[in-house]
Amino acid sequence: MDYRGRLLRARNALEQSRLDALLITHPANIRYLCGFSGSAGVLALGGAAPVLFTDGRYTEQARGEVRGARIKIAKGKSALLAAAEWLAAQCRRGRLAIESAHMTVADRAVLGKAIPRSLRLKDAPPLIERLRMIKDADEVAQIRAACRLGVKLFSQLRQAVRPGTAEAEIAGKLEFAARRAGAEHMSFPTIIASGPRSALPHGRASAARVPARGFVVCDFGVILAGYCSDMTRTLHVGRPQAGARRLYEAVHDAQQAAIEAVKPGSTVGEVDLAARKLLHKHGLGKFFTHSTGHGLGLEIHEAPRVAAGQKELLQAGMVITVEPGAYVPGKGGVRIEDTVVVTDSGCEVLTPCSKELITL
Amino acid sequence: MDYRGRLLRARNALEQSRLDALLITHPANIRYLCGFSGSAGVLALGGAAPVLFTDGRYTEQARGEVRGARIKIAKGKSALLAAAEWLAAQCRRGRLAIESAHMTVADRAVLGKAIPRSLRLKDAPPLIERLRMIKDADEVAQIRAACRLGVKLFSQLRQAVRPGTAEAEIAGKLEFAARRAGAEHMSFPTIIASGPRSALPHGRASAARVPARGFVVCDFGVILAGYCSDMTRTLHVGRPQAGARRLYEAVHDAQQAAIEAVKPGSTVGEVDLAARKLLHKHGLGKFFTHSTGHGLGLEIHEAPRVAAGQKELLQAGMVITVEPGAYVPGKGGVRIEDTVVVTDSGCEVLTPCSKELITL
Repeated sequence: MDYRGRLLRARNALEQSRLDALLITHPANIRYLCGFSGSAGVLALGGAAPVLFTDGRYTEQARGEVRGARIKIAKGKSALLAAAEWLAAQCRRGRLAIESAHMTVADRAVLGKAIPRSLRLKDAPPLIERLRMIKDADEVAQIRAACRLGVKLFSQLRQAVRPGTAEAEIAGKLEFAARRAGAEHMSFPTIIASGPRSALPHGRASAARVPARGFVVCDFGVILAGYCSDMTRTLHVGRPQAGARRLYEAVHDAQQAAIEAVKPGSTVGEVDLAARKLLHKHGLGKFFTHSTGHGLGLEIHEAPRVAAGQKELLQAGMVITVEPGAYVPGKGGVRIEDTVVVTDSGCEVLTPCSKELITL
Repeated sequence: MDYRGRLLRARNALEQSRLDALLITHPANIRYLCGFSGSAGVLALGGAAPVLFTDGRYTEQARGEVRGARIKIAKGKSALLAAAEWLAAQCRRGRLAIESAHMTVADRAVLGKAIPRSLRLKDAPPLIERLRMIKDADEVAQIRAACRLGVKLFSQLRQAVRPGTAEAEIAGKLEFAARRAGAEHMSFPTIIASGPRSALPHGRASAARVPARGFVVCDFGVILAGYCSDMTRTLHVGRPQAGARRLYEAVHDAQQAAIEAVKPGSTVGEVDLAARKLLHKHGLGKFFTHSTGHGLGLEIHEAPRVAAGQKELLQAGMVITVEPGAYVPGKGGVRIEDTVVVTDSGCEVLTPCSKELITL
C-alpha cells in the first residue's frame, strides 16, 4: 500500500483547509494512512513528520505494521494526550484540527486543557474520508479479493439453506467457512432472514427456522486484509407463486437499472433514482424503505451515501454497493446487492454471481 | 428486567446531580434502562416521562422491546435532534445533560444549535454507568447463563485444540458451536494464541498452526440475551517442561489469591495487588503487563476497572473478571480468567471449570 503517497495527500488536504496540524483518531483513517490496525492509536500530522502514538500493548504490532510514520509509545498518559503535547511542541501556534465526527466531547475537553492557548482547536472537515472515497489500485485489488471470497462462500451457503434449518445455523456455517478461508471477521452481523422475516431489511440471523416456502434474504460480507466485501442474494424455498416471482423480477430489474446508471460524472442520487423509478413502476415504491447503497472499503459503510437527492459525483475508483429491495410486511421481501467499482466508462461488478431466482 | 425501577433510579441520580434532563445516547445505557437494543436510539429523561426516540427502521423492534418509556419515531431528522427538540419543549429552561464520554464533538455541535439558549448543555457524570455497575438479580441470572454456556463451550473447545490445527479453525469451531447454542455473538474477537503467540496478551486467533509443544491461551466470551461472558483457560500441548509448569502454577496461584481478595468493602486495587504480589514473589512481576480485570455485563468492558491503585470499593452485585497472566516474550504466556459476582461475604465464581493444567 502506498502509505507515503496517502500521507502526502493528507498533508496537502490539510494545507488547503488552512489547518496547521491534525490529530487523527478514527481507526480506519489511521489504518488508511499508515497501516496501523490497533485499536488505541493517534496519528499526528503536522510538524516535521507524521507520528503514530500508541501505548505499550501495541509496541510490537506498531513496529510490524506502520509505514511512512514514526512510532512513539505513550507512557503514563493516553496516546491522545501524548500526541497533543508533541504537536503543541512542534507547532507552537496555529490551527490544530480534530476529527469532530469521531472524537467524544470528553476527549475534546481533555485535549482543550492540554494544549497551549496559542493553538486553536478546530473541527476538521472529513479530509481523510474524502481521500478514502477514491480507492487506489492496491485497495481495489483487496476489495476484489474480499468480494471473490464472498462469492465463493455464497455457493456453499446455498447448500446450507434448507427448510427446518435455523437461520443462525446457516449463518454459523457461513462464518466458519469464512474463517477457514482466511477472513479476519465478517463485515457486519450476517443477515439470514427467511419467510416473513425476509420483510425485515435488517433481519439478523435468528433462531427462526427456514419455512417450507418463502424467500430467504442472505446478506453478508467478509473482511480480508482489512477490506470489506458486501453482497446480498435472495433465494426462494419451494416453488414461488406468481406474486413472489414478480416481486423478485422487479427488484432484479431495479438493481440492473441502478448498476447501469453507475458511471463517472453521474451523481449518486441518479443511481438511487434509477432503482427507485423502476420499483415505482411496479407499484413497489413504498416497499423500498432504505437507500440504494453506500461506499465501502476499510469500513463497511463509508462515503459516498448512494441515496435519494445526494449530489456527490461518481468518480473512477469509487467502490459502492447497489442494493435495492422491496419488503412487503407480513409477506416477504427481496434484496439483491452487488459491490461495484466505478471505472472510466461505467462500472465493474466485483461480486459476479448469478442473480436469476434460485429456488430450493 | 425491572426497567421501571432502573428508570426511577436514573431519574433520582439526575436530580442528585442537579440536572433537569439527560439525553442518553450510549446504546448499552439505553438498553439497560428500557430494553431497546437497536443501534439508532436516544432516550430522553426529564419532562413528564421517559421517551425513546428512534427512526422508522426500528419501529417494529422498538414496539417489541421497549418497556417503561414511550416511543417516538423521528421523521425527517435524526433521533438525537428529535429528542433534543422534544426535551427543549418539555423543560424550557435549566440544565440539559449529555453523555460526554459517548457523544461526538460533531453531534454536540448540532445539538447546541437545536436547543434554546435558556437550556444550558452540561456534561453528565457517568450516572447510568454507575447504576449498571451493581447488577440486579435478573442481570446476574443472565450473566450466569452466558458464563455457563461459555464453560460448556470450553469443554468442546478442548477437543478442537490439536497440533497442526490453525488457531482460526479452532476459533471458528467454537464460534459455530456458540451460534448453535443460541449466542447472539461473541463478546469480543476470540483469542486463541498458541506457542510463542501465547506471549501476546491480545493474540487473536490467526492463521498460525498450533505447534507440537507449548501453551495455548484460549480467551473468549459469548453474548446471550445481551449479556456477556468472559473466561480464559490456558492449555499445554505436549508434556510441559519444568519452567512451563512453574509459570502456569504461579499464574494459577495469583488468580486464586485475587479471587480470595474479592469481597465487599475491599477496593478493586486490592484485588489487583493480590495477584501482582504473588507474581512478583515468583519473579514474574514484569511479565504481568495488564490489569487484573474489569466489570462486565451488557458490555464486555464496563466499570469498575480492576487495576493497580484503583480505589473503587467492591459491593455485592458487582460482576468482574479476575484474569492475571504472565507473558515471557519469545517463550510463551499463561492467563487464567474467571468471571465472578461479588456476594455479601465474598464472591461466587460464575465460570466454574477446572484450572489444573490440561496437557494435550
